[in-house]
Amino acid sequence: MRPAVIALDANGADAGPAAVAEGARLSGERVLLFGPAAQMEAGEGVEIVDAPGTPAGAEPVRAVRQNPDASIVQAAKAVADGRAEALVSAGSTGPTLAAATLSIKRLKGVHRPALAGLVPTPAKPVLLLDCGANVEVRAEHLVQFAYMGAAFMEAVVGVSRPSVGLLSVGAENGKGTPQVLEARERLAGGPLNFVGNLEGFDLPGASADVVVADGFTGNIALKVLEGTSRVVRDAIRGAVTSGPVSSVGGLLIRGAVGRLRDSIDPEAVGGAILLGLRKPVVVGHGSFGPRGIASAVGLARRAVDEDMVDRTSAALAAGGAMRSAPVGSFATVTPETPDRPG
Amino acid sequence: MRPAVIALDANGADAGPAAVAEGARLSGERVLLFGPAAQMEAGEGVEIVDAPGTPAGAEPVRAVRQNPDASIVQAAKAVADGRAEALVSAGSTGPTLAAATLSIKRLKGVHRPALAGLVPTPAKPVLLLDCGANVEVRAEHLVQFAYMGAAFMEAVVGVSRPSVGLLSVGAENGKGTPQVLEARERLAGGPLNFVGNLEGFDLPGASADVVVADGFTGNIALKVLEGTSRVVRDAIRGAVTSGPVSSVGGLLIRGAVGRLRDSIDPEAVGGAILLGLRKPVVVGHGSFGPRGIASAVGLARRAVDEDMVDRTSAALAAGGAMRSAPVGSFATVTPETPDRPG
Repeated sequence: MRPAVIALDANGADAGPAAVAEGARLSGERVLLFGPAAQMEAGEGVEIVDAPGTPAGAEPVRAVRQNPDASIVQAAKAVADGRAEALVSAGSTGPTLAAATLSIKRLKGVHRPALAGLVPTPAKPVLLLDCGANVEVRAEHLVQFAYMGAAFMEAVVGVSRPSVGLLSVGAENGKGTPQVLEARERLAGGPLNFVGNLEGFDLPGASADVVVADGFTGNIALKVLEGTSRVVRDAIRGAVTSGPVSSVGGLLIRGAVGRLRDSIDPEAVGGAILLGLRKPVVVGHGSFGPRGIASAVGLARRAVDEDMVDRTSAALAAGGAMRSAPVGSFATVTPETPDRPG
Repeated sequence: MRPAVIALDANGADAGPAAVAEGARLSGERVLLFGPAAQMEAGEGVEIVDAPGTPAGAEPVRAVRQNPDASIVQAAKAVADGRAEALVSAGSTGPTLAAATLSIKRLKGVHRPALAGLVPTPAKPVLLLDCGANVEVRAEHLVQFAYMGAAFMEAVVGVSRPSVGLLSVGAENGKGTPQVLEARERLAGGPLNFVGNLEGFDLPGASADVVVADGFTGNIALKVLEGTSRVVRDAIRGAVTSGPVSSVGGLLIRGAVGRLRDSIDPEAVGGAILLGLRKPVVVGHGSFGPRGIASAVGLARRAVDEDMVDRTSAALAAGGAMRSAPVGSFATVTPETPDRPG
């Protein structure tokens, strides 16, 4: 079997297209690279498609529709057309979600795609979803997120029978929004290894393999975790290096903080993955350098090789969580994007 | 002026009534202490009222109504009757909110009381509200939380013209739930020092003095922050002490982590405060020892001395954020407590 081709958008990363191209070469994968050809270097397995533009405009769906030549739009189309097997972007999340959802389309039976992030905790990676694709959700969306997240952890990360919990304000039944309460009831009767409600500290504490939330709460929880981790590390480093034995302390703490940073390094994880589409879509951090890009491409490749999409479908079907109404050609990307494609 | 009397519930703290009584004595304040007299020691200024019971039952409003002799119910009644000026509890949040709301009642013009927590960040304390009293909110609730939180920071913490932001999924206008978008619009035209939307990392980063959220998101954000802080400190301590120079490293890191813990110590802060009632109500952590209890009593005393309640009313009026509809005698404590008092 020839290795899968990954379509990679080189625009939008803070480090610029040259760094993304370097990440593509570093990955060792077959990459179709969309971006400004003048600024990028090809390499073994890396083919460049000149696409200098990015979708302009505050409203992602409209911007994507009005900029068919933009790199992210062309990259998504390459996946939809079968020229590539998965999409990777380190650009803005909004246009990536819009382009991917419009071109690649939702998986049959899926209400809403969800952005799933592998949260690097010291104990083990925890999958948090939704991290921001859906600001408002219904109970059946949360239920699908649970099945999609479990399928990803099983297929791509290799966790057997991953534990799944619902993020809420208390562990007891009866705690949470009406959406959470209803989702809890539905999940409790299903085939998942469902552990019930989780609280905020269960996310850094890695109390479950998959943590399910609406995109508003999930986005905030993820950023609070990342911000707190940074603030505490900086504060400890500051406290040690300002102490009486500052030079020795500084060396020790630099080593310790460095080891910790390695164990909770977002670049090693490869970014977030958009679940619920017909092909794998990986959204890197805008801050990724070549190493992060290479990880993101590797993550997309694993998702292809491990049949993540088919296994997601199977998990949704086994849980009776498929959407039964006819699926249109378009999924609402976010509630702020009411635009509809023609 | 005689110092204010603080009504203190001694039941419900993990450390037991004797430790709460010790905290009361330690505070140096005048305290009316409700709990099992046989397990507590009075002291100068500390008067004991024998009230061994706690409200039993999963549903707080019903439990409070069915247990009029319970310590928290009696303590709240003492404040409502004017025998004390403020209420402090280190027991469960649910019964405290229910007892306080039922007896002490909402401030005129307030839709919903909110639980406000002083989040100890290394930079400065940040007030986060709501931390869990209201799982679902409307835009006008968020607007009131903003004014109530700013009044608290100004009156009790002494921050002049505190900055106030709305927790959301992006800094740009247009990012967030419909409730957040509407609240943002209303706050932008008002007299507050309103900084717009904040993201998750702005909470540990202390980008504003007051961070406003619905109680579901606020509760989860607070617990993610506390949990991450603990996990990262433990991981750094573990990384240093397992290193090649473990004993020296262990000593250094213990000192540094200890100093950091002091700067972000919940016991020094005194717990959360329930804003929007006619008297100050402080809810300590269940884990508080005597020092935490003493801080909570001191926080309540400051709220009384600084006229927090009247200043909250004035701030709501100045912002045009008062509820105009007639105020009933009962505020919904949480959406999970649909019970209504007769």
